[in-house]
Amino acid sequence: MGYNKYMKNMQPPRRTQAERTRASREKIIRSATETFAQKGFRGAKMADIAKAADLTEPGLLHHFPSKTRLLMEVLKERDRVDSERMQVTLQKNGYRFLDAQVELVEHNQTVPGLVQLFNLLVAESISPDHPAHEFFIERYQRERGQCVQAIVLAQQNGEVRSDLSAETLAVLLFAMMDGLQVQWLMEPDKIDMAGLFRVMTNLLKEGMGR
Amino acid sequence: MGYNKYMKNMQPPRRTQAERTRASREKIIRSATETFAQKGFRGAKMADIAKAADLTEPGLLHHFPSKTRLLMEVLKERDRVDSERMQVTLQKNGYRFLDAQVELVEHNQTVPGLVQLFNLLVAESISPDHPAHEFFIERYQRERGQCVQAIVLAQQNGEVRSDLSAETLAVLLFAMMDGLQVQWLMEPDKIDMAGLFRVMTNLLKEGMGR
Repeated sequence: MGYNKYMKNMQPPRRTQAERTRASREKIIRSATETFAQKGFRGAKMADIAKAADLTEPGLLHHFPSKTRLLMEVLKERDRVDSERMQVTLQKNGYRFLDAQVELVEHNQTVPGLVQLFNLLVAESISPDHPAHEFFIERYQRERGQCVQAIVLAQQNGEVRSDLSAETLAVLLFAMMDGLQVQWLMEPDKIDMAGLFRVMTNLLKEGMGR
Repeated sequence: MGYNKYMKNMQPPRRTQAERTRASREKIIRSATETFAQKGFRGAKMADIAKAADLTEPGLLHHFPSKTRLLMEVLKERDRVDSERMQVTLQKNGYRFLDAQVELVEHNQTVPGLVQLFNLLVAESISPDHPAHEFFIERYQRERGQCVQAIVLAQQNGEVRSDLSAETLAVLLFAMMDGLQVQWLMEPDKIDMAGLFRVMTNLLKEGMGR
C-alpha cells in the first residue's frame, strides 16, 4: 500500500480538459505543418493529417472543422513565431539591418521543413481561389513595408547604399531570399544559402566593392 | 446541285488520322498546362483536364495513360520551346549575357500562366515522391551549368564583374529571377519584374556603380 501510494504520488498531475485540448491542438498543428509542407494545401488530405496526429478524422474535425481553418491556424502560428524572432534578431545585431537578414537566412537553414512549407503554400496561393491568396499578398505587402522602413534608417546610418530606393532594395532582398530557398531545398548540401545571401547583402552595402 | 458541289469544295480537306491525333494532343497539353498552373500537379484532376480539352476522361486516357505522363509531356514541350528562345535571345543581344537575361524576364512578363506553372511545379517537386523531383533538380543543374559557361565568357569580355565566381553569379541570377516571379505573380501591376531584374544585373556589371 505504501509503495502504491508512493507510485501514485510520482504520477504526473492529471491534466485538465483545457490542457488536453491545447496539447491536441499543438500536435495537430505540427502534423498539419508537415503534411502541408510535403503535399501542399491542395494535395494534403485531412485523413493524412489525422493519422500523423494519432487521431481519427472525426477527432481531427472536432478541433478544426475544415482543412482551410487548419491552414489558417498553421499560418497564424508561424507568423507569430517569426515576427518574435525578427525582433530578437534585429536587437542582437544592434539593429544592423543587413546582418540581421543574413542571420535570418542562417536560421532558415536549420528549419528546412518550414521553408518548404512556405515555398509551396506561396506558390499554390497565387491562384485566386486558394484560401491563403489574400493572406500571402497582405503578408508580402506588410513585410516589405516594414523592410522599407528599416532600410531607410540603414541608408541614413550609412549601412546600405543609397543610390537605390528602399522600395527597390526591399523587393530585391525578399526575392533573393525566396529564390535561394528553391535551389537550397533542391540541393541543401551544394547550395550555401546563407553564404550566397551574404554575397547579395555585400552588393547592397554602402561603399562595398565600389 | 451546283451549289452543294461548290460548298463541298469549300470544306477544309479531310484531316488524316495522324493529323487529328496531333491536334488532340496539342489541345490536351494546352489544357493540362493551364490546369497544372492553377492547381498544381497534386491538385489537378484528370477529369478537369479532360473537360478543359472537350474530351471524356477515357478519351484523355487514350492519349495519355496517366497524369504523370501528361506532366512530363508538358515539361518536355516547355523545355523545347524555352531552349530555342534562349538561343534566339542570346543571338539577338550579340551574345551579351546580362542583356539577354533581362530580355528573357521581359518575355516572361508576357506569359504569366507559364511562369505560374513553373513556380508551382518547382515548389511541389521539392518533395522526393513528386514525379518531377529529379526532372527539376537536373534542369537547374543543367541550366546553371550553361549559365556558368556564358558568365565566364562575359567576365573575359569585361561585361560581368570578375570579383565573384561564375558559379556564385549563376546561382544568384537564377534565384533573383525565381524570387521576383513570386512577388510579380502576386501583384503584376505593382512589381516591375524586368525593371527590378535589370537593377540586379547592373549590380553585376563590371565597373557599374563601383
